[in-house]
Amino acid sequence: MNSLNEMFNPKSVAVIGASNSEGKVGYIVADNIVKEGYKGKIYPINPKSNEIQGIESYKNIADLPEVPELVVISIPSPHVNQAIKECGEVGVKNIVVITAGFKEVGGEGVKLEEEMVGLLKKYDINLIGPNSLGTIDTHTPLNSSFSQMMPSKGNIAFISQSGAMMVAIIDWSVTAGIGFSKVISLGNKAGVSEIELLKFLADDDETTVVIAYLESISEDEDFVRTLREVSNKKPVVVLKSGSSVAGAAAASSHTGALAGSDVAFDTAFKQSGIFRVTTMAELFDVALAFSMCPIPTGRNLAIITNAGGGGVVSVDAMERYGLNLVNFDDETTTKLEEVVPDEGSVKNPIDVLGDAPVSRYQEALSIVLNNDVVDSLVVMVCPTATADPDGIANALIEGAKDFDKPVVVVNMGGPSFVNADKLLRKNNIPTYVFPETAVKVMDYLERFNSVQNRIYDDPIAKIADVDKKAVEDIFKKVKSGKRDTLLGSEAYAVAKAYGISAAPIILSTTLREAGEVSEEMGFPVVLKIASDKILHKSDIGGVKVGIETKQEAEKVFEEIMENAKKAHPDITPDGVEVQKMMPNGQEVLVGMIRDKQFGPMVAFGMGGIYVNLIEDVAFNLAKGITSDEIDAQFENTKAAKLLKGFRGEAPSDIAEVKEAIKRVAKLTLDFPEISELDINPIFVYENGSSALDVKIKL
Amino acid sequence: MNSLNEMFNPKSVAVIGASNSEGKVGYIVADNIVKEGYKGKIYPINPKSNEIQGIESYKNIADLPEVPELVVISIPSPHVNQAIKECGEVGVKNIVVITAGFKEVGGEGVKLEEEMVGLLKKYDINLIGPNSLGTIDTHTPLNSSFSQMMPSKGNIAFISQSGAMMVAIIDWSVTAGIGFSKVISLGNKAGVSEIELLKFLADDDETTVVIAYLESISEDEDFVRTLREVSNKKPVVVLKSGSSVAGAAAASSHTGALAGSDVAFDTAFKQSGIFRVTTMAELFDVALAFSMCPIPTGRNLAIITNAGGGGVVSVDAMERYGLNLVNFDDETTTKLEEVVPDEGSVKNPIDVLGDAPVSRYQEALSIVLNNDVVDSLVVMVCPTATADPDGIANALIEGAKDFDKPVVVVNMGGPSFVNADKLLRKNNIPTYVFPETAVKVMDYLERFNSVQNRIYDDPIAKIADVDKKAVEDIFKKVKSGKRDTLLGSEAYAVAKAYGISAAPIILSTTLREAGEVSEEMGFPVVLKIASDKILHKSDIGGVKVGIETKQEAEKVFEEIMENAKKAHPDITPDGVEVQKMMPNGQEVLVGMIRDKQFGPMVAFGMGGIYVNLIEDVAFNLAKGITSDEIDAQFENTKAAKLLKGFRGEAPSDIAEVKEAIKRVAKLTLDFPEISELDINPIFVYENGSSALDVKIKL
Repeated sequence: MNSLNEMFNPKSVAVIGASNSEGKVGYIVADNIVKEGYKGKIYPINPKSNEIQGIESYKNIADLPEVPELVVISIPSPHVNQAIKECGEVGVKNIVVITAGFKEVGGEGVKLEEEMVGLLKKYDINLIGPNSLGTIDTHTPLNSSFSQMMPSKGNIAFISQSGAMMVAIIDWSVTAGIGFSKVISLGNKAGVSEIELLKFLADDDETTVVIAYLESISEDEDFVRTLREVSNKKPVVVLKSGSSVAGAAAASSHTGALAGSDVAFDTAFKQSGIFRVTTMAELFDVALAFSMCPIPTGRNLAIITNAGGGGVVSVDAMERYGLNLVNFDDETTTKLEEVVPDEGSVKNPIDVLGDAPVSRYQEALSIVLNNDVVDSLVVMVCPTATADPDGIANALIEGAKDFDKPVVVVNMGGPSFVNADKLLRKNNIPTYVFPETAVKVMDYLERFNSVQNRIYDDPIAKIADVDKKAVEDIFKKVKSGKRDTLLGSEAYAVAKAYGISAAPIILSTTLREAGEVSEEMGFPVVLKIASDKILHKSDIGGVKVGIETKQEAEKVFEEIMENAKKAHPDITPDGVEVQKMMPNGQEVLVGMIRDKQFGPMVAFGMGGIYVNLIEDVAFNLAKGITSDEIDAQFENTKAAKLLKGFRGEAPSDIAEVKEAIKRVAKLTLDFPEISELDINPIFVYENGSSALDVKIKL
Repeated sequence: MNSLNEMFNPKSVAVIGASNSEGKVGYIVADNIVKEGYKGKIYPINPKSNEIQGIESYKNIADLPEVPELVVISIPSPHVNQAIKECGEVGVKNIVVITAGFKEVGGEGVKLEEEMVGLLKKYDINLIGPNSLGTIDTHTPLNSSFSQMMPSKGNIAFISQSGAMMVAIIDWSVTAGIGFSKVISLGNKAGVSEIELLKFLADDDETTVVIAYLESISEDEDFVRTLREVSNKKPVVVLKSGSSVAGAAAASSHTGALAGSDVAFDTAFKQSGIFRVTTMAELFDVALAFSMCPIPTGRNLAIITNAGGGGVVSVDAMERYGLNLVNFDDETTTKLEEVVPDEGSVKNPIDVLGDAPVSRYQEALSIVLNNDVVDSLVVMVCPTATADPDGIANALIEGAKDFDKPVVVVNMGGPSFVNADKLLRKNNIPTYVFPETAVKVMDYLERFNSVQNRIYDDPIAKIADVDKKAVEDIFKKVKSGKRDTLLGSEAYAVAKAYGISAAPIILSTTLREAGEVSEEMGFPVVLKIASDKILHKSDIGGVKVGIETKQEAEKVFEEIMENAKKAHPDITPDGVEVQKMMPNGQEVLVGMIRDKQFGPMVAFGMGGIYVNLIEDVAFNLAKGITSDEIDAQFENTKAAKLLKGFRGEAPSDIAEVKEAIKRVAKLTLDFPEISELDINPIFVYENGSSALDVKIKL
């Protein structure tokens, strides 16, 4: 792909479909480009005129004196592909298609869009759209969109998969006093995807934070690793809608995009280092903070307030978001005591009292920011009779400017703070009305610090002691038998080949074999009818546990085969499987479900027969998984507490469990034909573990 | 208590401490009363002048020509009680004390406040404060507060335990366009509590919804039942802060009030029908909706939008809040098809498209509201190029006015909607910027409908077959033995006396008795050393299970007694307890913890040794508990799924479990000396149940 730079900062722009008829999209786009002060060359293209909006126009792209760096297309859908072809022929590399009537309308539109994708590949063109509202770059400046409103200049890049949402948000940003670097309406994503845009914006000097409203995520071979490269450079905050079952249906009906499973999205975002928010309000609260604040290096928050109530509400929020209410050392406390009257509080939250003059805020601020233990600060102002919001604002601006710590202000009120809000925001101190919001954004700011400090190793790549060939052979055999479910003995062999400890299961086809296998394995053993066609094996007398001798094993083999015959005369079992009985251990589960977009997702949690009731499970995508992510996945379950020795029991072999997670990840990455995998339970011991039941479906 | 009516609508107000010095609290209060248009008689009281702010003033309360219906006191704290006494002597019934320096400062202040409480009782006075910012009634109108700002007239009553929060909120309400009926600063709650205010406001014609910021809840003998009488009449929305451990500490340090356990608060609020919110933003979003909307009779929500994206986001939120995305019948769909273009959507959410003229909104609105299945409606407007926000607003006002269904508008933007927002709110249609907020308030509106439809029975009162005397005797015996923990056999006897099925446990003190008791009970039995002093009974060989004969029982009695003697030569056991061994059943837990504010709180959930790991538990306060609440408590657990037959098992005896919850509630209400009670596990069978281990601590 070519650089996207010319898409946003082109030396020349052609508008195919530029028009003299007010109200027409082609008119508005051309008018926006001119009106918002674009400084490059503009080429209106319209076969029916020589002049558009006072600018010399051309009949055809081929007639232009130069190849335009950007072309915006707004002509009826049946003609769009022809126009793209002509652009391609003359060497145009960047196109925005505003015209709708493609994939999103189904039928003929789908065909048109497929054709378009072909042209883009043929001519190596970057294309945003179709069905896009266009793009805006406030720094160039270039408004090559259909939006009537130009947002203020700022450092937030905004990508929207919904044109209407984009318009709404530009409108709202005016009231909120938020500025953007770029605003991009994705449309149908026939060409440039949000992933390519994110990669581009990661290196865009005018952009500090990227926010996105998305209804689907584009395909990427290595999604997690690709996005990590972005999230390591800049915070990315995404409102991915269609999270509900009903919502997903609405999303796919209206964008024609496939909505993936929501857990998979959550997991993919988390592993990528992308922040997923659930409400639009949160999207903008967080964007504001990232656009203005330095990133804190820890989770120790201090609060200065002139109202005890605000402090209490903030502390509640801190508990919810897991921020630390830092305790001050004696030195800091002594200094604060000199500033804060006795009726106030020198403990965090610092209560400077309702009658606090500007100087008291100023001094408290200086003491707190100079304390190295404090990573971030929330300052709250209630409009008490004596409060001076503007004075406090100026003191905060002055006092905070020399520190590389985020300071966020809660101006609790309305008219009293109109001016103070403007003043503070202009000086890169974000303000909010409610204390909870301030605490929430501090959580996000620090999470970005954590994202940047993550270590990306590749524990899967380090696993060498696997026998891939053995697994290939087993799968070949299963497929040749036209089965999709592995026998227990086959699944055991697969686990063994990939170094996953499991209780041995061996298939015996004769009475004699059953006896020999049992003896070799060591008693006690279990005998189980072997057939992927017999589902309720226990119910038909197909399972016998606690077999202690060779003779018993031989006898039971006969019994089981007869029981099976009686119950299912039409089925020929594969034989009888002998499994070694293992001592009881703590029961956990390791499994895998394959997401159609993100590939294998490994699961870990409490095991046993009630897994679906207890619902203790944490996921990771196998692709790109790191050791830290496996640790976090483990810690995020109740099973972790169990294995650490919950009721004073000796701790279980946790390393062994994490090894199992890794090896399941590797197995399911190596073999895309595995559609489902379930190891439940794994008995975990003080030393070692043993998988009791391995289920693999192809 | 006298009526609080004169507190807010007095014919005359005296201000003790009224002053001519601008800036003094006494000046501001008197000035506020005059300035905000109070129409009754004003009596400034100040020993040093004859005229205050141009009004004839008096030296003393006794000098007034009449007994004022309200007295506001703002003089130094050491003189406040004397003033109250003088008020009491002349028959004053309503006082607001603005002066601070009482309980909240500790030491001498605590004593002063105690003295004040005595005076209030003696003279039968309603007093708000001390340390209150005062009260405001916008309808009287009377601003007898220290607040510089008078809020707009409205129908929201606001109670605040923090003066600064009150000021902040009045300030903010101006921007938000929210009006109040009454604003009350609680202060230290020495006299009138929030509970008394809620009872009063329940019958206040000027108030539609009550909101409160509280840091502690006042004591009430029968909290749940008292508050139900309020919540049955009006929605009550509370932000109770200090929910976190750290937050609770901050709250108690700054109001001197005791913060109860947070689960108990949640439970008490839920059973009372009070809505607890967690953020200030939520408090006001919800208040706005209640102040303007009719209450819907169900959870079927319809959405009309001109932007697909907004619809998707709303549907996600509906899923989170459990609202139904109603499906339209054929008739409605056909009607919508005549109105909505093909590219739009006639399914819910209805997408009238970005180019929707006012008429399309109008027609869709009428079709949807006329559909009986639709309980409530959210209308979304994105500021597309052709959207006419004011026109749509007028159409909605006109179209919605004949329906008794809540209609909430999402105006997604800023400047484009300034006028439309005002128009809609003036006509009692609340507006929000983001779709999630609109969905959230619909959830609250319907929850009020549910609260009003609740049935309050008293299942505890109906339990007659209990042997209270038997339990009294057992407790007497335990106390006389200077023990606080009951023996297993005693706990069993208590359970039996209250009709809770339990596996029999009988104490035997001799070898012979052990044999006889075992035989009578029926084998198999368990023998267990009986002593509240021996904790780890199994470890010292003090427990033996699976005893099958009388002879064995006698032998084991001897063994166990010897083992105990060996391990603890200093302890004399009470004997050996014989317990009948019961068949395995599904394991659940029923327990009780006693909250220091709300009394016994019964717990139900999954049982067994890992209860603290699985954390499947739901609570109800015993006092006021209803059958529906017990049902809800049961359904809110995973144990419910288990007992219904989770893996195709036969359902367990659920009625028996609910009976156990009820009887534990009754037992712990009847005996306040029970500090802790734990029945874990209870084995639940297809028919009946059996408590295996009953622990009772006094």
